[in-house]
Amino acid sequence: MSFGFQVTGRDGGARRGVLTTPHGAVDTPAFMPVGTQGAVKGVTQRDLEALGAEILLSNTYHLYLRPGDGLIARQGGLHRFAGWTRPILTDSGGYQVFSLAARRTIDEQGAHFQSHLDGSAHLLTPEKAADIQAQLGSDVAMVLDECLALPAEAGAARSSMERTLRWAARARARFLAIRAGTAPGVIVTNPGQAQFGIVQGGVYPDLREESAAETVKVGFEGYAIGGLSVGEPADVMYDIVARTAPRLPEDRPRYLMGVGTPSDLVEAVARGIDLFDCVLPTRNARNGWLFTRHGDVKIRNARHRDDTQPLDADCACYACRHFTRAYLYHLQKSNEILGARLNTLHNLHYYQELMSEMRGAIEAGSFQEVSSRILERRRYNSALPEEDSQ
Amino acid sequence: MSFGFQVTGRDGGARRGVLTTPHGAVDTPAFMPVGTQGAVKGVTQRDLEALGAEILLSNTYHLYLRPGDGLIARQGGLHRFAGWTRPILTDSGGYQVFSLAARRTIDEQGAHFQSHLDGSAHLLTPEKAADIQAQLGSDVAMVLDECLALPAEAGAARSSMERTLRWAARARARFLAIRAGTAPGVIVTNPGQAQFGIVQGGVYPDLREESAAETVKVGFEGYAIGGLSVGEPADVMYDIVARTAPRLPEDRPRYLMGVGTPSDLVEAVARGIDLFDCVLPTRNARNGWLFTRHGDVKIRNARHRDDTQPLDADCACYACRHFTRAYLYHLQKSNEILGARLNTLHNLHYYQELMSEMRGAIEAGSFQEVSSRILERRRYNSALPEEDSQ
Repeated sequence: MSFGFQVTGRDGGARRGVLTTPHGAVDTPAFMPVGTQGAVKGVTQRDLEALGAEILLSNTYHLYLRPGDGLIARQGGLHRFAGWTRPILTDSGGYQVFSLAARRTIDEQGAHFQSHLDGSAHLLTPEKAADIQAQLGSDVAMVLDECLALPAEAGAARSSMERTLRWAARARARFLAIRAGTAPGVIVTNPGQAQFGIVQGGVYPDLREESAAETVKVGFEGYAIGGLSVGEPADVMYDIVARTAPRLPEDRPRYLMGVGTPSDLVEAVARGIDLFDCVLPTRNARNGWLFTRHGDVKIRNARHRDDTQPLDADCACYACRHFTRAYLYHLQKSNEILGARLNTLHNLHYYQELMSEMRGAIEAGSFQEVSSRILERRRYNSALPEEDSQ
Repeated sequence: MSFGFQVTGRDGGARRGVLTTPHGAVDTPAFMPVGTQGAVKGVTQRDLEALGAEILLSNTYHLYLRPGDGLIARQGGLHRFAGWTRPILTDSGGYQVFSLAARRTIDEQGAHFQSHLDGSAHLLTPEKAADIQAQLGSDVAMVLDECLALPAEAGAARSSMERTLRWAARARARFLAIRAGTAPGVIVTNPGQAQFGIVQGGVYPDLREESAAETVKVGFEGYAIGGLSVGEPADVMYDIVARTAPRLPEDRPRYLMGVGTPSDLVEAVARGIDLFDCVLPTRNARNGWLFTRHGDVKIRNARHRDDTQPLDADCACYACRHFTRAYLYHLQKSNEILGARLNTLHNLHYYQELMSEMRGAIEAGSFQEVSSRILERRRYNSALPEEDSQ
């Protein structure tokens, strides 16, 4: 199967679609669980399949440093290495260089940094990021973008956006060379890989507009909106998404990077986004923060200590079908691995169900009604007295 | 189903049997995975069922301190609390008082100690240990025994053994009072609970002999051999087991506490032991020490870094069927939770298979041959050059 995308339905601004990749199809809108180091924390690959996850996100920066893209290529690519047969999207590593690496300096060439693992020196260029992802063999590779330091004045945001555009052109050229077989030394483990460009421009609508137009001119199989959910108010983010999405080609998938809360997903789907990734469901799970249709639950709260009810009686996940809040509370307080696992299964199940509910609503033409109900319920529950952390 | 035990076959000193409990039957010889705090680290309850674990061990000391046996009783007992429908054996907490608690002092009354969690003061008596386990509702409760500080002279070993005997009589009296409904304030969550006595006496055959005879006089539904695998040479342990097991009633289950390595299990089954528990498969798994039929594997060793082979090509566990040594190495080096999980699934699978193989061999009358082969293979593999820790 080669890469493709088809919009199969619309409801207001929301799109229902199917992404096809060399490793199978993905019903969109879709949420990608994050497997930073080639593993999603707290669950197995068969758990993810059972949860209905059709695509995972993994991380170029981490896998390049350890175990190395060369090793993974020799193993036949990331799918075989990680025992995951469904699609994978890899981010370019740009964000991690900015957030994790030591002594990073950015120049026109790329990002110079030291590994957070052993201090070794590295240079990540747009070309190098493309090479690494070709060796990993993900189904979707992302271009290397510059992550703007915040808060950013319009001038800095413009410079950064423009550099990201120049890098996008270089990344695309390299990607096409790899595809054409004129990139010696790169082991291509997935000849059907696609490449997505990334729209930057901070919170400035005019920069976003320009970035979208120029990125589309470079030409990619899909487009991402990057640099959001980095501290700006939610309505600013929604506004940027609303202005940017329509400037991207109708027939290409749109991916909102690193976003977000359940409400963010609903708001962004309403504005035409097809793909999401976020560590929220998995990271919050390990900290005992659980998402439910009836509001968020902080399972460490003492009110759950004696509670013989399941986390969510209406939820069909393994944790909710077999265990009580009292047991989940006990596991969390005892730092038992099982707590992280059950919480992660639940949160990912919640996210997958949320996406499934939205897909069904778009198909049925009831997205407005369904999304309003989801958002209303979340607003109502956040208005309840805050649960005190114990 | 009420508690019972039937020896269904013999081969040399080895016994094949069936333990029946209010929560189902257990084919013996059996290994009990350890769920210290009501959860086996790294796996779920459904994993354990799929692995064929028919009985779990859990821990009175830990559960008494957190979440409390009162809370668990209010939840309907440990089975319901932990979502485990099969049999559970609880140890008495004696060993943990000695190994974990702060400022412990032992006198004839019991063990005074401070919680390792919050420093609170507690007194664990033989009666209290029986009460806690009645509230937990395990299928098998253990008597509180005194754990001998090592190394122990014969005099100290005798005093300790004699105190354990006096405690055994008190524990039995309390257990019978609970069963008769004359222990007010104790919430009995499993009316069919059985109680096992524990033979002590260190490495002194005469003390072990006396302890066995006197413990049997008190009268229990089963008998354990305690205080072994605490630093003495393996052949001393095997010798004590060989001398003690025949002094226990033929028609009652025999449980060797806290033991042990795969070789220990084989040697002890050969000497008439029916039940085992040990943290070795689960704890070693988390540290990357994996048991296989072809020898132990330390997965952190650099030799596995590029290895596209499974851990054990002959193993049917999830980890061996789906992942390479290179991936397990990567997970271990990256401290990914998935590494702990896959390794634990594998090691528990190995232990369950080992027990199953021994049960089959006893039934077939080939225990001598099968056990020799297992031990020979382990000796051969330990004679290979040591893998260097990385």
